Amino acid sequence: MSKKVKINAAILIIGNEILSGRTQDTNTSTLASWLNSIGVQVGEVRVIPDIEKEIIDTVNLLRKKYNYVFTTGGIGPTHDDITASSISKAFGLSYEIHKEAFKILEEYYKPGEFTEGRQKMTWMPSKANLILNPTSGAPGFNIENVFCLPGVPSILKSMLGGLKHKIIGGEPIKSLTISLRTVESEIASSLAKVQENNDDVEIGSYPFFHAGKLGVSIVIRSDDQSKIDICNTQILEFVNKKNIEVVNR
Amino acid sequence: MSKKVKINAAILIIGNEILSGRTQDTNTSTLASWLNSIGVQVGEVRVIPDIEKEIIDTVNLLRKKYNYVFTTGGIGPTHDDITASSISKAFGLSYEIHKEAFKILEEYYKPGEFTEGRQKMTWMPSKANLILNPTSGAPGFNIENVFCLPGVPSILKSMLGGLKHKIIGGEPIKSLTISLRTVESEIASSLAKVQENNDDVEIGSYPFFHAGKLGVSIVIRSDDQSKIDICNTQILEFVNKKNIEVVNR
Repeated sequence: MSKKVKINAAILIIGNEILSGRTQDTNTSTLASWLNSIGVQVGEVRVIPDIEKEIIDTVNLLRKKYNYVFTTGGIGPTHDDITASSISKAFGLSYEIHKEAFKILEEYYKPGEFTEGRQKMTWMPSKANLILNPTSGAPGFNIENVFCLPGVPSILKSMLGGLKHKIIGGEPIKSLTISLRTVESEIASSLAKVQENNDDVEIGSYPFFHAGKLGVSIVIRSDDQSKIDICNTQILEFVNKKNIEVVNR
Repeated sequence: MSKKVKINAAILIIGNEILSGRTQDTNTSTLASWLNSIGVQVGEVRVIPDIEKEIIDTVNLLRKKYNYVFTTGGIGPTHDDITASSISKAFGLSYEIHKEAFKILEEYYKPGEFTEGRQKMTWMPSKANLILNPTSGAPGFNIENVFCLPGVPSILKSMLGGLKHKIIGGEPIKSLTISLRTVESEIASSLAKVQENNDDVEIGSYPFFHAGKLGVSIVIRSDDQSKIDICNTQILEFVNKKNIEVVNR
């Protein structure tokens, strides 16, 4: 069997509106779920303000540490949209009109409506590759392993399909959830033993409260289904022994 | 007028379930809104996995960089709850039973139900101060400027009241939102001028789509209400000149 390649990524959310609590970020879970499904494990998420130096420093750190970096936010037409210019500086590239992006938006808008503000959205690092936007025209872009996406969740989601062929993932990460009618402390020591016996599998325990009843979801994650199955068997063994009800699977 | 003190904080979300996309984090917006209301500006958010070294390194970096650090997650009874032991190592403190926490949980649970798993929740860095938990008994804790809270959003929320007196905030950050029936590109250059004229005020522009109609919310933030008022006046000036409808305030 060939050695499995682990591919990882960082997500960088750029935007004061998340740090002020005004906006609830949902792009992290959208991107993380999608990345996991194509075999890319998210190692870290950071949320930083719309400050040039922070964007430059963070991008330069993360792009060396991870196979991929996905940024969201800051690529619109207003003064606080500084992601594209900051990324240009991070890579030491000039910040200029992207001809293909210009052509796309020129055709997208009605004559006379392709204003200066909208033209700003075609300014990118030189040599950027476009990520097409089927929702609202203005493309995202990537430079090397850094992919810049918009902050509006519905637009971001619509761009993932066109992005998929640019990402080379590893073995998709599989997961199995076992939901139990119990509390965490009841199963903690037995579950810890299963984790010890299977230290290359990620086993998480998450309490839930649903329809007036407490429960615990155990999540087993690995890129190897047979390892998940082994943990599942070991967990069901102690669950049966303790007479704990399995709620669903 | 006395010089205003800026107080900042970082939020550190600890948990594989956020990085896998399985769980949508809501604690960031809860904490950020609350911190802003008491005059603490959130400078950065990080989400990291349940890995001891990552927790130690990140906590040690953030606690030096910010006035406060708030962690969420990893203080429950199961094997993947390693926040308390990792924070102990980060501070070079021993990880031991906290007598007061032990007493609280001993009284909280029925006789015989204070199991080994539950007793794990009383293990903390020595010298930890408790953060009381009115929902489910098990307290959070703080060491110096690092405050450790649970990951379950409803429990976290219920603990903020008891935490407030431990945080010394600066001037509360005030904000004003002006919602317009327009698109960003229509106002981008005028808004940029207002930002240039008021470079110590944070002005953000956020497109929205509500009830079938597009709009833009402009958010003005400062700890000085008079500066917000000045920006408001300047924005309404160009809004009126352009005949843009103000949707609400």
